[in-house]
Amino acid sequence: MAKELGGFNFEQRHGKARVRVGRVWRSKDGRHHFMVEWNVNISLLSDCVAAYVRDDNSDIVATDTMKNTVYVKAKKCSEQLSAEEFAILLGKHFTSLYPQVFTAIVKIVEKPWERISVNGQPHEHGFKLGSEKHTTEAIVQKSGVLQLTSGIEGLSLLKTTQSGFEGFIRDKYTALPETRERMLATEVTASWRYSYESVSSIPRKPLYFNDQYLNVKKVLVDTFFGPPVGGVYSASVQSTLLQMAKAVLSRFTDISSVQLKMPNIHFLPVNISSKDNGNIVKFNDDVYLPTDEPHGSIEASLSRSRSKM
Amino acid sequence: MAKELGGFNFEQRHGKARVRVGRVWRSKDGRHHFMVEWNVNISLLSDCVAAYVRDDNSDIVATDTMKNTVYVKAKKCSEQLSAEEFAILLGKHFTSLYPQVFTAIVKIVEKPWERISVNGQPHEHGFKLGSEKHTTEAIVQKSGVLQLTSGIEGLSLLKTTQSGFEGFIRDKYTALPETRERMLATEVTASWRYSYESVSSIPRKPLYFNDQYLNVKKVLVDTFFGPPVGGVYSASVQSTLLQMAKAVLSRFTDISSVQLKMPNIHFLPVNISSKDNGNIVKFNDDVYLPTDEPHGSIEASLSRSRSKM
Amino acid sequence: MAKELGGFNFEQRHGKARVRVGRVWRSKDGRHHFMVEWNVNISLLSDCVAAYVRDDNSDIVATDTMKNTVYVKAKKCSEQLSAEEFAILLGKHFTSLYPQVFTAIVKIVEKPWERISVNGQPHEHGFKLGSEKHTTEAIVQKSGVLQLTSGIEGLSLLKTTQSGFEGFIRDKYTALPETRERMLATEVTASWRYSYESVSSIPRKPLYFNDQYLNVKKVLVDTFFGPPVGGVYSASVQSTLLQMAKAVLSRFTDISSVQLKMPNIHFLPVNISSKDNGNIVKFNDDVYLPTDEPHGSIEASLSRSRSKM
Amino acid sequence: MAKELGGFNFEQRHGKARVRVGRVWRSKDGRHHFMVEWNVNISLLSDCVAAYVRDDNSDIVATDTMKNTVYVKAKKCSEQLSAEEFAILLGKHFTSLYPQVFTAIVKIVEKPWERISVNGQPHEHGFKLGSEKHTTEAIVQKSGVLQLTSGIEGLSLLKTTQSGFEGFIRDKYTALPETRERMLATEVTASWRYSYESVSSIPRKPLYFNDQYLNVKKVLVDTFFGPPVGGVYSASVQSTLLQMAKAVLSRFTDISSVQLKMPNIHFLPVNISSKDNGNIVKFNDDVYLPTDEPHGSIEASLSRSRSKM
Repeated sequence: MAKELGGFNFEQRHGKARVRVGRVWRSKDGRHHFMVEWNVNISLLSDCVAAYVRDDNSDIVATDTMKNTVYVKAKKCSEQLSAEEFAILLGKHFTSLYPQVFTAIVKIVEKPWERISVNGQPHEHGFKLGSEKHTTEAIVQKSGVLQLTSGIEGLSLLKTTQSGFEGFIRDKYTALPETRERMLATEVTASWRYSYESVSSIPRKPLYFNDQYLNVKKVLVDTFFGPPVGGVYSASVQSTLLQMAKAVLSRFTDISSVQLKMPNIHFLPVNISSKDNGNIVKFNDDVYLPTDEPHGSIEASLSRSRSKM
Repeated sequence: MAKELGGFNFEQRHGKARVRVGRVWRSKDGRHHFMVEWNVNISLLSDCVAAYVRDDNSDIVATDTMKNTVYVKAKKCSEQLSAEEFAILLGKHFTSLYPQVFTAIVKIVEKPWERISVNGQPHEHGFKLGSEKHTTEAIVQKSGVLQLTSGIEGLSLLKTTQSGFEGFIRDKYTALPETRERMLATEVTASWRYSYESVSSIPRKPLYFNDQYLNVKKVLVDTFFGPPVGGVYSASVQSTLLQMAKAVLSRFTDISSVQLKMPNIHFLPVNISSKDNGNIVKFNDDVYLPTDEPHGSIEASLSRSRSKM
Repeated sequence: MAKELGGFNFEQRHGKARVRVGRVWRSKDGRHHFMVEWNVNISLLSDCVAAYVRDDNSDIVATDTMKNTVYVKAKKCSEQLSAEEFAILLGKHFTSLYPQVFTAIVKIVEKPWERISVNGQPHEHGFKLGSEKHTTEAIVQKSGVLQLTSGIEGLSLLKTTQSGFEGFIRDKYTALPETRERMLATEVTASWRYSYESVSSIPRKPLYFNDQYLNVKKVLVDTFFGPPVGGVYSASVQSTLLQMAKAVLSRFTDISSVQLKMPNIHFLPVNISSKDNGNIVKFNDDVYLPTDEPHGSIEASLSRSRSKM
Repeated sequence: MAKELGGFNFEQRHGKARVRVGRVWRSKDGRHHFMVEWNVNISLLSDCVAAYVRDDNSDIVATDTMKNTVYVKAKKCSEQLSAEEFAILLGKHFTSLYPQVFTAIVKIVEKPWERISVNGQPHEHGFKLGSEKHTTEAIVQKSGVLQLTSGIEGLSLLKTTQSGFEGFIRDKYTALPETRERMLATEVTASWRYSYESVSSIPRKPLYFNDQYLNVKKVLVDTFFGPPVGGVYSASVQSTLLQMAKAVLSRFTDISSVQLKMPNIHFLPVNISSKDNGNIVKFNDDVYLPTDEPHGSIEASLSRSRSKM
């Protein structure tokens, strides 16, 4: 993608970020409604150096035009579709319509609107905002080559026991005691790469990627916590993270890699003492100070060895 | 609370904000865990003008001491309790221990940790973060007089139909068309005042206020949406808000007033046209632009007329 | 403002929040530009209960109309004006045009765009964003009665010495040592009430309130820090706050009261030790842990005793 | 860095994020103070797979230990130093002390505390928070190989004229009119790579990198705005961005590449009309709607062609 430019290497991209779109679909009788709210981010890699060097904008797709395109395409989708499908559809559009655009990168974050139930019955047109978010990124080449990644943002999990940390390096900078009993809290950011390598090879099943999103989330959550009775011991965030990543790859054959970021969000034991008073509070696995900073940062990715990625 | 100070009126308060505490309780066999995470904010109204005018801090409760007190008291609570109960407990503490403190204002925001289910069964010690938050404020006087308010923050609701807005003032500043069909989205901030007027009169039932929080939330949500089939028409945010407030006061006899803030978060109809292209997108109750700003701001409070408040 | 409503007391307001407007003025030769960016928040107190109880919107000023009005009025201002003047102008408009509107509350936050200098010379049309923000609130009654408040948001100040805290209450919850040497950091939120009691009595001088904003800010800052050589000792945030408030009231005769919120943002001494290592870090007024939570919260207001406020 | 792991490729890193440290230095007579506030983020690339696969933590540097190290090292710095120097110092520490750590990535964001002036004289120990932030990232290999990048975050610039956008692609998705007169606003995120390739080759001059930070910032700002009289015409954000990047590379010989992200933050022309009222507001380069979303996203990097990077 780098260009030679008067003795310099030059790389550039331009796009439109934070394009927000809501889309409502209605059943044939008009009563049952489906809706999504997406925040779309488009980046185009294209040959448009003239705009930079000669003030010639004739190869520039105005970012305002990109925004309009999101709305035109959303309108044309006559049935509910996943964020993944919409991202690919936009990527195909930009790379086919404009000769100079060789790659389109489309990211979508979906707001977690969930159908509400009233008296145990799903409401026809009522929705409430949930917590963690479904994300996706489609990188589409003019040739149809596809990289499709999906993910979760803001999945906060906490277990009050079955976590420890022992046997780590002790040197003159170490103050942390070893423990087999601590709180474990994290905010999982997950992303996984699908193995579909072209836009023509993705599953035709409607809402397939929404189902997969829920499936992957369930596997991550279940592996983190272990069985409802007894749970599962975590020897470190590292160890738990790898188990989660492995579970995803072994369960979902169309996922070729998975990346997990699992900050260790500390719930510090509360011990307070003073010269005069001695122990004011002495920790007994009961009272914690939850803190956002600093936090441990643990991240890893796991991928199939023979993947063609 | 105002003091005369060398020809000026003077009012002051001091406290500690953003004191975060996590508390875990275990069942007798140690297996079943309960937990809360609170963000506590304490303000003391007290006679301590000497600190301001004479650099004499002898009537000042250090804010660090207030923080320690939160942890001491959390530890002493041997069974799970509601944020309301904990706020009152702290308020009683500060107003009884320190002669110069006449009023304590304690606010708590609870993080919405929810017990996770694995394979349909509640997990013994696993929790996941939900969305909207339970809040409370207890104002405790030295005499035991109490004002207790509870609330909800961040309850985002949306319905895709059964909302309109007609018949409003039309003048030369008006561009908004009338409609009987629009999206209605809001982020409800609710607070309600309990009628208990002293710390000794609050219900003894454990976790009573947690139950009430869930009950009030259900009534608000159900009234906003109406029946699962057909819903209920909203003639304005104002109209819907009043119905929600009335529903709360008529259902809960120990609530003397309720305040609702319901910003009208706009999902704008998308219409795009240009001189060259004419209509690029024409709205048909299908494609919306969700926007956070500007938003309508509608708020109201409803209280029982003969309340002694 | 409360209404009787079927056995309940009822209070309400509605408005438009987060209306953003940028306004550019040019000198006669078109070369020298002036600009402001405002975030406007309007609330109207009005008789429009029919909308709530009978779905009759005929007394409702649509919030979309309020938004349009902001732009119409900004356009009509042919010369640069302060946020205060614009807020009053809007307040007068709403209370005079609409019979049922008895009070308008208009708040404005101004983005701190500052004219840039290039090579020491002020640029004709270039601006850079600064830090703290100028705010104002005008409450305008139909009768012309005015309450005008201005303020500062986000004024972060820090001094590395000349601050201490001694002689406070020591009891069994106290762990904080006394000190005559600590860091003092705060984020000042200030607001001051002008004594003008009607819209007709405000100064005619253009940009008067912008000048006052800068004057008050300078007095607050200078009082906080003391002389450039040596500074001034602070015996507590309380003591410093009162000196700042007094300085404002004694310097500005058209200010009748001032409110200051000065959270004590802690820079904790860093001491780290462990059983194995003893002292890893021992504090010597050199290394600090800056933290946002918890923080002390100190606020006070000072007003002239015989003010008619 | 990837490892083979039971049929999978595996990559991982761990570290400590949001380690906040304040450091104060005093002149010999104790009167003149210097201070910095840093937010440090450490990531270590190391051989510690045993922790992931066998619950063996013996190669793990606890993230708590990393945090302690920040404070120990800050304390040992007896004179003021730049964030760049501190990041390198930490990187050297982790890669030399721990055999299994082959790379350390240290990022620092510095809070823009600026010495205050009182009555035109710099204050000995008083500071006020400014706006944009100085950032740095040092990637240090065990061998001493260094990648050093510095940058600016949050530099918001705006010019009210001398900006246009013409000649771009017009198709059926295009609604944007051409213009030679518009507002141009952006929030510059800049980063530049220094050409020093090992920790031993960086300049010895104290605070060298702080000076360079100010120098680069000045060149970026001056190029964006042009001369104080007349300014300089911008034919597109792209064109202006490239001029800024070129100016940096041509002025600073020890910078080998520069990356600029310059979102086009739109100030939309305000035009309001309705069927009944016709034009309510008609734009005349005077009234704008500033908006954060959507925004154009333009980014590019420019590097020396024969750089050994």
